[in-house]
Amino acid sequence: MNSFDQEDGSPVMYRTPDYVPRRSWRTWLIGRPLPTADAPHQTIGKLAGLAIFASDALSSTAYATQEMLVVLAAAGTAAFGYAFPISLAIVGLLIILTLSYEQTIHAYPGGGGAYIVARDNLGELSAQTAGSALLTDYILTVAVSVSSGVAQLVSAFPVLYDFRVEIAISLVLFVMIVNLRGVREAGAAFAIPSYFFVAMMYLMVGVGLVRYVAGTLLPVADPPPMETLGGVQALSLFLILRAFSSGTTALTGVEAISNGIQAFREPRSRNAGITLMWMSVILGTLLVGITFLAGEIGAVPSESETVISQLARTIYGGRNVLYLATIASTTVILIMAANTSYAGFPRLSALLAIDGFLPRQFAFRGSRLVYSYGIVALALIACMLIAIFQASVTGLIPLYAIGVFLSFTLSQTGMARRWWKIGHLAPGQEVKERGSTLRYEPGWQTKMTINGVGAVVTAVVALIFATTKFVQGAWVVLLLMPLLVLMFSAIHRHYRSLASHLSLEAYGAPPPVPRHRVILPISGVHRGSLAALRYAMLLSDDVTAVHVSLDPEEAARVRKKWDMWGEGVRLVILDSPYRLWLEPLLAYIEEVAANRQPNETLTIVVPNFVPKHWWHNLLHTQAAIVLRLALLFKSGIVVTDVPYHVE
Amino acid sequence: MNSFDQEDGSPVMYRTPDYVPRRSWRTWLIGRPLPTADAPHQTIGKLAGLAIFASDALSSTAYATQEMLVVLAAAGTAAFGYAFPISLAIVGLLIILTLSYEQTIHAYPGGGGAYIVARDNLGELSAQTAGSALLTDYILTVAVSVSSGVAQLVSAFPVLYDFRVEIAISLVLFVMIVNLRGVREAGAAFAIPSYFFVAMMYLMVGVGLVRYVAGTLLPVADPPPMETLGGVQALSLFLILRAFSSGTTALTGVEAISNGIQAFREPRSRNAGITLMWMSVILGTLLVGITFLAGEIGAVPSESETVISQLARTIYGGRNVLYLATIASTTVILIMAANTSYAGFPRLSALLAIDGFLPRQFAFRGSRLVYSYGIVALALIACMLIAIFQASVTGLIPLYAIGVFLSFTLSQTGMARRWWKIGHLAPGQEVKERGSTLRYEPGWQTKMTINGVGAVVTAVVALIFATTKFVQGAWVVLLLMPLLVLMFSAIHRHYRSLASHLSLEAYGAPPPVPRHRVILPISGVHRGSLAALRYAMLLSDDVTAVHVSLDPEEAARVRKKWDMWGEGVRLVILDSPYRLWLEPLLAYIEEVAANRQPNETLTIVVPNFVPKHWWHNLLHTQAAIVLRLALLFKSGIVVTDVPYHVE
Repeated sequence: MNSFDQEDGSPVMYRTPDYVPRRSWRTWLIGRPLPTADAPHQTIGKLAGLAIFASDALSSTAYATQEMLVVLAAAGTAAFGYAFPISLAIVGLLIILTLSYEQTIHAYPGGGGAYIVARDNLGELSAQTAGSALLTDYILTVAVSVSSGVAQLVSAFPVLYDFRVEIAISLVLFVMIVNLRGVREAGAAFAIPSYFFVAMMYLMVGVGLVRYVAGTLLPVADPPPMETLGGVQALSLFLILRAFSSGTTALTGVEAISNGIQAFREPRSRNAGITLMWMSVILGTLLVGITFLAGEIGAVPSESETVISQLARTIYGGRNVLYLATIASTTVILIMAANTSYAGFPRLSALLAIDGFLPRQFAFRGSRLVYSYGIVALALIACMLIAIFQASVTGLIPLYAIGVFLSFTLSQTGMARRWWKIGHLAPGQEVKERGSTLRYEPGWQTKMTINGVGAVVTAVVALIFATTKFVQGAWVVLLLMPLLVLMFSAIHRHYRSLASHLSLEAYGAPPPVPRHRVILPISGVHRGSLAALRYAMLLSDDVTAVHVSLDPEEAARVRKKWDMWGEGVRLVILDSPYRLWLEPLLAYIEEVAANRQPNETLTIVVPNFVPKHWWHNLLHTQAAIVLRLALLFKSGIVVTDVPYHVE
Repeated sequence: MNSFDQEDGSPVMYRTPDYVPRRSWRTWLIGRPLPTADAPHQTIGKLAGLAIFASDALSSTAYATQEMLVVLAAAGTAAFGYAFPISLAIVGLLIILTLSYEQTIHAYPGGGGAYIVARDNLGELSAQTAGSALLTDYILTVAVSVSSGVAQLVSAFPVLYDFRVEIAISLVLFVMIVNLRGVREAGAAFAIPSYFFVAMMYLMVGVGLVRYVAGTLLPVADPPPMETLGGVQALSLFLILRAFSSGTTALTGVEAISNGIQAFREPRSRNAGITLMWMSVILGTLLVGITFLAGEIGAVPSESETVISQLARTIYGGRNVLYLATIASTTVILIMAANTSYAGFPRLSALLAIDGFLPRQFAFRGSRLVYSYGIVALALIACMLIAIFQASVTGLIPLYAIGVFLSFTLSQTGMARRWWKIGHLAPGQEVKERGSTLRYEPGWQTKMTINGVGAVVTAVVALIFATTKFVQGAWVVLLLMPLLVLMFSAIHRHYRSLASHLSLEAYGAPPPVPRHRVILPISGVHRGSLAALRYAMLLSDDVTAVHVSLDPEEAARVRKKWDMWGEGVRLVILDSPYRLWLEPLLAYIEEVAANRQPNETLTIVVPNFVPKHWWHNLLHTQAAIVLRLALLFKSGIVVTDVPYHVE
C-alpha cells in the first residue's frame, strides 16, 4: 500500500494493494495465479513448431482413410479400390493449400488466420463468416479427435467399448484443465509424442511396404464387422465425391501454423513457412501410404476396430509390442490434436470479443494468463457433441471439414484480393491495415493466381462437401453458421449502442439535484429498522417510512412503537387486503416516483437483516432481495441496503 | 388511496392502495386471490363431519387386511387363519382409543391435537416429539393412501402397472392444487364419495356373508402371484406381533376428529364425540368383516391385485359393474384420505411456525387464505417418498403408524396428567392453560384411568411396531423424529436470539453520526459512472472513487478522463497484478473500514448498468451483484446501487 503520484495537483492516486490471492480448490486444480508480468515471451524453433502445430493435421491420418472406406462400403468392398486414387487427389489439394498458405504466412507475420485475412480484405461479414466457421471447426476438432483417440483405445481394449463416451468426456475435461493451467513449457511435452507418432507411422508404413514388395503381406486376419452408412447403393460419381469429402478431413489443421506465426523464432515467416512444408510432406506421404496398404490388406471400416489397428496388427503379425506402441502413439497424438483447438478457439474468441462480436469475458485472461472463458466454453460444447453423437467419429465427420474449407476459401479469396490491392499500389507507397502492411511487390500476378486457384479449389471442395454430406449432418453446420453470424452482429449492436449511450461526447455539466426523497420500508420497529432509519435521516430530511399491514393488530403495534421511537419521521401504513407484501409497496413507490419533480432523486433504503449462518436465511422472507429485484427495472430509483448484522 | 388518520399529531398515516392483484398463471391454476375479510366461518354437522374427517381412518380398511396377510405369508398360507383373531385384537385397541379420544374432545373444544395436549401437559420436548411424529405421519398418510389408491386402479386395469409412480405423483399434485385453491364448499364434495364408499363396503361384506351362510362363497378364482416379505420362516409370536403391527395401520386417522373440533356446529364437543363413535363403529365392523371374508375365500396378498379387488370379484362373481363400483369407491376414498393430511399438515406446521419451531413462512396465508407453504411442502416430500418406494404400500407400511402411535401415547399421557391436575384443584378454582381451561370435575379418577390405559396400550403397540418393523424401515422414522426435534429447537433458538437482538428494551437514543464516507468503484469514466458520482456527492462531501486497473493503458485513459470529468473528487487507481477485480477492491474497502472512526458510516455506491434485454446481462460481468454478495457479510457497510438504464 504505497507509491503515490500526486505531485501535479491531480486528485488521482495510484496504489498497489498488498494482495496475495488466496489458496482454494482452484489453486489445487489449475495452479497458483500468475501475475501479468509473467506473461511468456519465449519463441520456438521449427522442430518444436512442427510438434505443436502439426499434431492436428497429422493426427487426421488416423481416421481419414477409414472415413473414405466407410462411404465406399455402401457400394461393396470392390469399391474400396477407389480409395487410393481419391487419396492422390487429396494430396493434390494439399499441395495447392500449402502453396497458398505459404504466401499467407509471409504476408501476415503477426498471425494470418482466416478471420484476420478476411476482415482486412473482404469486410466484416466475411470475417464473421470465417470466425463462425473456424469456431465451429475448433469445437468439432476436439470432438472428432478425442472420439477417434478413444476408438483407437477401444480397438486395443474392446472391453472399454461401453465406456467410450465417459472416457472421451473425461479426456476433454482433462485437456481443459491442462490448458487452464497454461502450457508454459509446451515444447518438450509436445515434441516427444508428436515425433513418436511420426516415427511409429513411418515404421508401420515402411514395414508394410517392405512386406508388400516381399509378397509376405497377408490380408487382415479375423476382420471386425463392417460398418456402412445407410443401405447398399451402386457405385456412382456422387458416392466417390462423398468419399473424397470424407477424406479431405485429413486437411483440417493445415491452417494452424498460419494462426500461430508469432510463436516462431525470427525469421518468423521463414521458419513458419518451412515448418508448413515439412508438415505437408509428412501428411501427404502418410495418407497415401496408409490408404494404399489398407487397400492391400483388405481393411474394413468398423466402429469396433479402427483401420490403423487392423493395419498395425496385420503388418506386425499380431497384437504385440509394436502394435501397442503404434496404437498408443495414435491415441496420444489424437488427444494432442484436440489440444491444438484449445490454443486456437480461445485466441480467436478473444479476438472476436475485443472486436465486440462475442461477450467481453472471452477477452479476459484468467488467473493463469490464459483465456479461461474460451477454454471452458470449448470443452463444454465439445462434451455436449460427444454425448449427442455417442463418441462416433463417423457420426461427427459430416459436420466436420465444411467449416474448415469455408475458412480456407475466405482466407484465400482475401489473400487474392490483397495481391490485387498490392499490384495497384505505386512503388514505395505503404498502406497500413489492421493485420499487415501493404507494399508494392513485383510478381503479384503469380501470387494472386496461386491464392486464386486455392480459393476456387477449396470453394469447390466445400460445395462438394455440403452437397454430398447435406443429409447426414452438414445441414446442421450450414444452419449454425448464419445463426452464429447473426449472434455476432446482435452482440456487436448491443456494445455499440451501449458505448454511444455512455459516451461523454456532447455531455453537458450535470444539472443540480434539487431534492432527495428517501422511502424506508419497514416490517416492524426494532433495532434493525431503527438503524436503517438513522441512516435514512443522514441522507435526507425528507424521509418516509412505509409499513405494509397484513394484520391490523400488528399495524397497531407498529404504530404505537413508531410514535415512541420514530423520531417524528412520517410513517405510512399500507393496508393489504390480499396479504401481499411486495405489490402494495411497489404501487406506493411507483406513485411517489411518478409525482416527483424533474431531477428529484428517489432512494429506497432497505433494512437488510444478515444472519450469522447462511441456513438462517431459510427462516426469513428474503424481502430485501425480492424488493431489489422488483425495483431493478424501474428507471431512476436508487436502492440502498442497510445491513443489520446479528452477531 | 385515501382515509387519513392524522388528527392527533402523530406522523402515522393509513392508506389503502387501489391495488388489484394481477392475473397470472397462478390465477388460472388456483383461482383469483381472496381478501382476508373472506375467511370462511361456516361450521358443519355430524354427517358432513363424518365424511370429511373419517375418510383417512375408513380408507385404511382398504389395505390393513392385506398388510396383515403379507406378513403372515412368510409362514405359509396356513398362517392366514391368524388374521381374523388379530383383527379382533385391533378392534379392542380401537375401543380403548375411541373412549380416550372422546374425553380429549370434551376437554379441548378448541381443538385437541397431540401437539396441543402434550404442550399444555407434558412440556415443550414432548410437544415437539408429538409434532415431529404427526408431521412424519401426515406425509406418510399421503404417500400410503395414494399408493394404495393407485394399487386399486392397477388391480382393475393391470396395463397401468408400469405407470403407477407417475399416476401416484400426478394425484398428489392434483390434490395439492385443489388444496391450494382452498376447499370452501367441502361438505357435499366429500359427503358423496365417503358415503358411497361406506355403502359399497357394507354391500360387499353383506353379500359376502349371505353367500357364506348360503354356502355359495367360492375360493378366489385365478389368484394373483403371492407376495411375501423376505424368506420363508416358521410361525412365531414375533411374526404374529408383526402382522398385528401392520394391521394397526387401520387405526391411523382416528385422531383426525380431535384436531378439527372447531369445524363442528355447536354443541361442538358433543357433535364431534358422536361423530367419533360412528366412525369407530364403521371402521371396526368393516375391518373384521373384510378380514373374515378374505380368509374364507383364500385371498392372497399381491402387488398386482389388492385383497379388496379379489374379494369384490369373488363375491360379485366377476369383474362386473358392482366390482368396478367397489374399486372406484375405494380408489376415491383413498385419494380423499390423502386430502385429510392436506388439512392437518399445514395447520400443524402453521401452529409450530407461530410457536417459532418452523420457518415463519409456514404461518403465512397464501392468496387463497390457505397455508400454501405447508401444502406445497407436504406434496413435495410425499412425492419424494412415492418415487423412492416406487408407490409400494408394503414398502411404505413399516415407516407408517409408528408416528401415529407415538402421538397417541403422548396425547393420552398428557390427558391423564391433565385429569390428575384437575383432581387436585379446589372446587370452583379455574386455571387457564393455552389450549383449554381446567376446572375441578368429580369422577376424574375414572377418566384418568381411561386415558392412562389408552396411553399404556398405545405405548405397547408403538414399541411392538418399532421392534417388529425396525429392520424393514421403522429405523428411518426413529432416526428422523429426533432429527426433526433438533431442527425445531435450532430454529427456535435462532428466532429467540434474533428477537433479543432486535428488542428495543434497554435501547438508548441513537448516537450522532459524525462522518459519512462514500466509496465509488468505477470501471471507467462514462455517463453511467458520472451519474453515480453525482449521486455519491449528494450523500457526502467525502467521496473517493476507486478504479481497479487490469491494464495500465486503460488506467491512463481513466485518469485522463477523470481529470476532466471527475469534479475534483479523489480517484484511487488500484493496481491488480493478478488481473483480479474483486479482491483488490475488497482489500481496499476493508482497509478503509478498519481505519474508520467510531460511528462513522461507510457507504459503497455501485454504478449498476441495467440493460434493455435480460440476455444482455450475459454480455457484462455482473460486477455490481458480485460486489454486493461479497460485501453482504462485512459488518456495517452500506451498499447502494445506482442504476443506469440504457433505453
